[in-house]
Amino acid sequence: MRTILLTIAYDGTDYYGWQIQPDLPTVQGEIEKALHRVTGKEIHINGTGRTDRGVHAYGQCATFRIGDGIPTDRIAYALNNSLPGGIRIVSAEEKPEGFHARFDAKGKTYRYRLLLCGPHEDADGAPQAQRQLLYLRNYVYQVNRPLDLAAMRKAAAAMEGTHDFACFQAAGGEERETTVRTVYRVELTERCLEEGFFPEEESAHVLDIDVTGDGFLYNMVRIMAGTLVDVGSGRIGAADVPAVIESADREKAGHTAPPQGLYLMRVYFEEDFGHGEE
Amino acid sequence: MRTILLTIAYDGTDYYGWQIQPDLPTVQGEIEKALHRVTGKEIHINGTGRTDRGVHAYGQCATFRIGDGIPTDRIAYALNNSLPGGIRIVSAEEKPEGFHARFDAKGKTYRYRLLLCGPHEDADGAPQAQRQLLYLRNYVYQVNRPLDLAAMRKAAAAMEGTHDFACFQAAGGEERETTVRTVYRVELTERCLEEGFFPEEESAHVLDIDVTGDGFLYNMVRIMAGTLVDVGSGRIGAADVPAVIESADREKAGHTAPPQGLYLMRVYFEEDFGHGEE
Repeated sequence: MRTILLTIAYDGTDYYGWQIQPDLPTVQGEIEKALHRVTGKEIHINGTGRTDRGVHAYGQCATFRIGDGIPTDRIAYALNNSLPGGIRIVSAEEKPEGFHARFDAKGKTYRYRLLLCGPHEDADGAPQAQRQLLYLRNYVYQVNRPLDLAAMRKAAAAMEGTHDFACFQAAGGEERETTVRTVYRVELTERCLEEGFFPEEESAHVLDIDVTGDGFLYNMVRIMAGTLVDVGSGRIGAADVPAVIESADREKAGHTAPPQGLYLMRVYFEEDFGHGEE
Repeated sequence: MRTILLTIAYDGTDYYGWQIQPDLPTVQGEIEKALHRVTGKEIHINGTGRTDRGVHAYGQCATFRIGDGIPTDRIAYALNNSLPGGIRIVSAEEKPEGFHARFDAKGKTYRYRLLLCGPHEDADGAPQAQRQLLYLRNYVYQVNRPLDLAAMRKAAAAMEGTHDFACFQAAGGEERETTVRTVYRVELTERCLEEGFFPEEESAHVLDIDVTGDGFLYNMVRIMAGTLVDVGSGRIGAADVPAVIESADREKAGHTAPPQGLYLMRVYFEEDFGHGEE
C-alpha cells in the first residue's frame, strides 16, 4: 500500500464545508467520489483541516492509502478530470507508511481577506458598495467603515505567541484537550487593486490578514479577524487585546467574521521546518 | 401609473437565464419576487435581452409599470435589500408612458471575455491551467492554444456592417422576421492582469471581444466569439470570414463559445444616440 498526500485548492462557495455529510455536497465527499470513479475502490481520505461551509482553500491537505494501480504521478491529473471545476488537486505525492495529513501537521497558515470600501452613495442615495460586491461577494468580507490599520497591527502583534486562546473559540467545535495554541505570526498586508478582472475591483483595497500557528480552535481565525476589524473601527482598543486574551472570555473578543473571507493557504509538516527524518 | 426603467447587473452563474420559468431560479423571476415583496403587487417586468443560463450582465435593462407608493428614487435601494447578492439594481428611472425596454432598444453591447493561457504542465505532468481556473471558471472562456490576434482583428473587421448573419444563428431561438442585422463595431482588447484578486489572475492575459449592434440573433455573439477563436487558432482563415457570412450556413462558422464568458454590457435607447425628443 502507498500513502498519498494530496494538496487541494477549492472554491468553498458551493460546498457544505470539507467534511463528508450524507446528501450534502462537501469537498471531502466530492474527492472520495472522484477517487471511486478513478480507482473503482471506496477510499477514505483524512483532511488536515475541517473547513466550514463557504471557506476556501489554496493548500488544504489530505492523505489516503491505495494499493497498486494508478501511478502516483497520474493521480492529480486523473482526479482533476473527474472532479467539479471548483475543486482542484494541486499535487499528489507518496509519503512514508503511516503519514497522516492531520496528525502529522505541525502548523497551518490561514488568510482572511477584507475588501475595504468607503461608504459611497450614488445619485439616488443607493449604496454603491452593494453593486461593487456582485462578483466578489463570495470571496471577501466587505468593510464599509474606515479602519485604523496602525491599531490593527498593534492588536495583531498582541495575538502572536503562546496563549490560552479560549476567547477566540466558538462553541460547537470538537472537544479539545487544551485551548493553548501558538500563533507564530499575524501579518497584515494592504494593497490596491489597480485594474482587476471585474470592474468592482477597480480602486478597491484588499487587506489580507495572514495567520500562521501550530493549530487553531473552532472559528479561531474568523474571530481573530472580526476582533481586528473591531479594533480598526474603534469598538475594541488595541491596548485591550492582551486583557481580552487573558480573560479567556469569548464575550470580550470581537465578532466572528463571515466564512467567505477565509482561505486555508498552507499546511506545514515536519520537513517544512527543515529537520525531517523520513 | 409610472413607467420605470431598471438597469441591472448580475452574476448569471446561479440562474437559469433571464426569462422566468416555473420552479427554476431566473433573474427575471428573482426581480419580480423582490418587486412583490417591496410593493405587495404582482408586477411583470419586460427585459431587453433574454440572456441564457450562465450569461452575466453589467447593464441589462427592464421596464415595468407601477402606481403610487414607493418613490422612484427609492426603488433601486429597496429592491437591492430584497434581492440575492448576485443580482444588483444599478439604477431605476422614470420613462414616458409606453416606454418598453425591449421594443425601444436601439442597440446593445456585449462583451465576450477570453482568458489566454499557455499550455503549461507542472512537475507531475498535470496541466497547471486546470488550477488556474478555480476562481474564474464561471466568468471566462479559457483558451490554452496560442491565438493569432492580428488574424482575429482582421476577421472581426469583416464581421462589422449590415449583413445577413444567419451563419451566426443557433437553432432554438425565437422566430425572427429577418436575419439581417447591423454590427457597428467588433473590438478586441487584450490586457495583462498584473496582480489580481486571485492568484490565478497572475500573469494571465484577458482578451475582451466587445460587440455592438442594433440587434442579435440567438447565440450570435457566442458564435462570433467561437469563430474568432477558430480564426485565431488557424482552423478558419481570416480571409474566409466574408464567404462564411455570405454562405448563411451555420456549419461554415466556428464553434459556439460557452455562456460563462458572455456579458450584456449596455443597452442603447433613442436618447443615447443624441437625437431623442422626450
